[in-house]
Amino acid sequence: MAAARRQVDIAADMGESPGPWPMGRDRDIVPYLTSAHIACGFHASDPATIRTTIELLREHEVAIGAHPGYPDLVGFGRRRMDLAPRDVEDLVLYQVAAVKGMVEAFGGRLQHVKPHGALYNVAEVDDGTAQAIVAAIKRADPELAIVATPHSRLCAHATAAGMAVAREFFLDRGYNADGTLVSRRRAGAMLTDPEAMCRRAVAASRDGRFETDDGATVEVQVDTICLHGDHGPSHVAVQRLRRMLEAAGIAVAPLGTFARAR
Amino acid sequence: MAAARRQVDIAADMGESPGPWPMGRDRDIVPYLTSAHIACGFHASDPATIRTTIELLREHEVAIGAHPGYPDLVGFGRRRMDLAPRDVEDLVLYQVAAVKGMVEAFGGRLQHVKPHGALYNVAEVDDGTAQAIVAAIKRADPELAIVATPHSRLCAHATAAGMAVAREFFLDRGYNADGTLVSRRRAGAMLTDPEAMCRRAVAASRDGRFETDDGATVEVQVDTICLHGDHGPSHVAVQRLRRMLEAAGIAVAPLGTFARAR
Amino acid sequence: MAAARRQVDIAADMGESPGPWPMGRDRDIVPYLTSAHIACGFHASDPATIRTTIELLREHEVAIGAHPGYPDLVGFGRRRMDLAPRDVEDLVLYQVAAVKGMVEAFGGRLQHVKPHGALYNVAEVDDGTAQAIVAAIKRADPELAIVATPHSRLCAHATAAGMAVAREFFLDRGYNADGTLVSRRRAGAMLTDPEAMCRRAVAASRDGRFETDDGATVEVQVDTICLHGDHGPSHVAVQRLRRMLEAAGIAVAPLGTFARAR
Amino acid sequence: MAAARRQVDIAADMGESPGPWPMGRDRDIVPYLTSAHIACGFHASDPATIRTTIELLREHEVAIGAHPGYPDLVGFGRRRMDLAPRDVEDLVLYQVAAVKGMVEAFGGRLQHVKPHGALYNVAEVDDGTAQAIVAAIKRADPELAIVATPHSRLCAHATAAGMAVAREFFLDRGYNADGTLVSRRRAGAMLTDPEAMCRRAVAASRDGRFETDDGATVEVQVDTICLHGDHGPSHVAVQRLRRMLEAAGIAVAPLGTFARAR
Repeated sequence: MAAARRQVDIAADMGESPGPWPMGRDRDIVPYLTSAHIACGFHASDPATIRTTIELLREHEVAIGAHPGYPDLVGFGRRRMDLAPRDVEDLVLYQVAAVKGMVEAFGGRLQHVKPHGALYNVAEVDDGTAQAIVAAIKRADPELAIVATPHSRLCAHATAAGMAVAREFFLDRGYNADGTLVSRRRAGAMLTDPEAMCRRAVAASRDGRFETDDGATVEVQVDTICLHGDHGPSHVAVQRLRRMLEAAGIAVAPLGTFARAR
Repeated sequence: MAAARRQVDIAADMGESPGPWPMGRDRDIVPYLTSAHIACGFHASDPATIRTTIELLREHEVAIGAHPGYPDLVGFGRRRMDLAPRDVEDLVLYQVAAVKGMVEAFGGRLQHVKPHGALYNVAEVDDGTAQAIVAAIKRADPELAIVATPHSRLCAHATAAGMAVAREFFLDRGYNADGTLVSRRRAGAMLTDPEAMCRRAVAASRDGRFETDDGATVEVQVDTICLHGDHGPSHVAVQRLRRMLEAAGIAVAPLGTFARAR
Repeated sequence: MAAARRQVDIAADMGESPGPWPMGRDRDIVPYLTSAHIACGFHASDPATIRTTIELLREHEVAIGAHPGYPDLVGFGRRRMDLAPRDVEDLVLYQVAAVKGMVEAFGGRLQHVKPHGALYNVAEVDDGTAQAIVAAIKRADPELAIVATPHSRLCAHATAAGMAVAREFFLDRGYNADGTLVSRRRAGAMLTDPEAMCRRAVAASRDGRFETDDGATVEVQVDTICLHGDHGPSHVAVQRLRRMLEAAGIAVAPLGTFARAR
Repeated sequence: MAAARRQVDIAADMGESPGPWPMGRDRDIVPYLTSAHIACGFHASDPATIRTTIELLREHEVAIGAHPGYPDLVGFGRRRMDLAPRDVEDLVLYQVAAVKGMVEAFGGRLQHVKPHGALYNVAEVDDGTAQAIVAAIKRADPELAIVATPHSRLCAHATAAGMAVAREFFLDRGYNADGTLVSRRRAGAMLTDPEAMCRRAVAASRDGRFETDDGATVEVQVDTICLHGDHGPSHVAVQRLRRMLEAAGIAVAPLGTFARAR
């Protein structure tokens, strides 16, 4: 059984515009975040967008993570690619190095890495991919935290490698009774009621479990709460989420301040 | 008049294969180099090739530089692109950060940066581009040396910014009487006699000048001698170049050991 | 002096989303158009977006053109690239062939070609680029109309090659007194008053001239009126443009019905 | 049991260089081919290379096919991507339309389509992918032949759709006893004895079967014999292949002349 948590991070993917195309509502949600995941230029973003996003996050004192993905701009990194583990390792190392170096060039420090989209999904179940990601991140900087879902192979391999792990909970995604996410191809993949989102996130963060609409109890472990900035209801929810968490006795802080100490 | 030099570096572009396509003869020429410039993934190369090239260079104890270019794989970065200085800065910073981070991840240290192809050519004459490149490199790491041609705007701005500059001489390219390179669209762009290449490089390195075939005297300053690994005669020349330089009293060493001290 | 025209086309760029990123308001403006220019996958769009856009345009009986650009997704084709004419020719032919074939695969017929962004701007003044574009389009199909600004090299070379030319007027861009567009880097590049936009377009279409705010008379020739679908005021303007043109005695029809006959 | 064939086609992939990177030995092998598969710009090639390859093939009177692949240049289209059937359809249609239009622009006619690499492998076993490919090709031109392996889903769906199918045999790849290819990750994937390659190809073409080294009989159906131009022994073999086939009473001709009539 998961222990109750006293601290949690609120995070979102950011900087997902390649060139002139807008995605997400970065400026609207940044005031409510403690961490953010920056796309690294392979599934989204480009050098100018990365820089602008770093500047925005530093202005708002939001902790920064790299968000590497498959090299598939048109598919937004959401299509699985059959890469050898060695290719995954090099791909992740390159992307993390690029964003880490840019963050440091602007006086900051990279806090964590979270794989994106299909790469994240594959790393939940595939040992080769999960190990390659952990190897790349550790090589880039052994102090980096790794964001992963609690029961994933990524979480297991990161822990085994002695890396700090932040277990991720999704504010706005539907969960199946077994703790996996409802597929994006199904109804219920995205929640639409901001109030219900927040209540569920508070329960999950405080109790390590929550109830689904059909009465199932889902056990979760929550170090960081992720929301999707381009989803309207999430934008509404995040504005009250912090207050509700704090009212429930849960401190809100960047994951770098507690993931390693856990 | 240029003073005689006592030390010089021998370098080549490397790792220019994107995915499975071969370019250059990296393994054949690496034993004869003291430095190398690694393509960063925008005009050539990819994460796996960068890693393989880093491992090869470290095995041979060759000093490593980043070789950023325009985002134009099909054009191999040899086609001028009209980028705003701010876009140049972010583009160069991203590429340098990626390769610098990968070099460090494998236990090395990035020594220098040399812009590639059309970006290098534009930086010879365009102040905005040259300043943006210098700003990016300084931001990435103020200890990095910058490779530039002696009379270029890049050389001037790098010097003004307090950065170490390594002035580049080309082993295998034809020079005009005014010290500029013969255009790749003209006859004489690439030299074909290995012996003549070496003699010219020794004269340039020792005396700061050399004579062209039609009797003109070209003044040059030589910190690093660049050769093209995919050009057969250069491959022949590099095998005797070091011995000829040393016979003329010129030490051969990575530019990091003397560019800053100059 | 330009003769008054009796017919005009209303057109917009469409299908400019690469993968999941939205751009423009295709579905909002399509009911008001007689022609559209589809991005071909190099500066924007992708195969799935092209297909969806073709289906949308055919449903609304809007005539279809190909809108080829430089291979620069991050720069949205708005950055000049220094390509040899032969490379321009092959680049344009490939893009036109791809969209032409897709239009025909869905039972339609490609009406015209309009180069995009920096390629269009370069073709206004550079003979080599303009000739290469004309050669590519003629090779793809000599019946295709070419959209060009009246005094451009593209217009001249298309006419000399015996191709149908549609001279383009911009509904929402500012004009200088010499008939060139106000640069996008300056104030006044985009007009903001829908009513004024429409009045100017009617004057230009009917009289072949219009007056600027500072009293200069600009002579123009108008076969097709282009608007930018992602610019709010243009969206307002296009809803009344057709009625105002028809009230002034100008028929609104796809350019294919009159460009060749002119 | 497969019936003996009286006609066969000899083909190779061509035009696989993106920009300046060389691959294959197009000019060396083209005199020995009756058909060729041109890469379409997504896994390899670019517009200029496609044009040069078309001109080369037409000069040698070699029949032309399009060779579409996954959008993965760095992986050379050899890495499986998890695309929805609709995305496969649009991807294939775009690539076929581009090459078909370019072939016609130079006075030729596209003869066939063969999917490349991982796309070809997935289409052997996945109904959704195979159907999408067939739908795209039929939409582009119902007269196009489709190259497929005999027992593949692609072969089945192409036949069911009434399309001409050319069954492919590999001159230089190892076969397992069940008629599948030896994986590229295993020894024996590529044959190295030119004489044995030719003997096997003659047996397969004439008898519809051949014996492997360990005595197994593999049944095959051969309309087109594919070889890899960058594999040295294949280059040797192809120079005597035609003569050996003709000596065995098998006519060598482009597949377009017999695939439909079969």
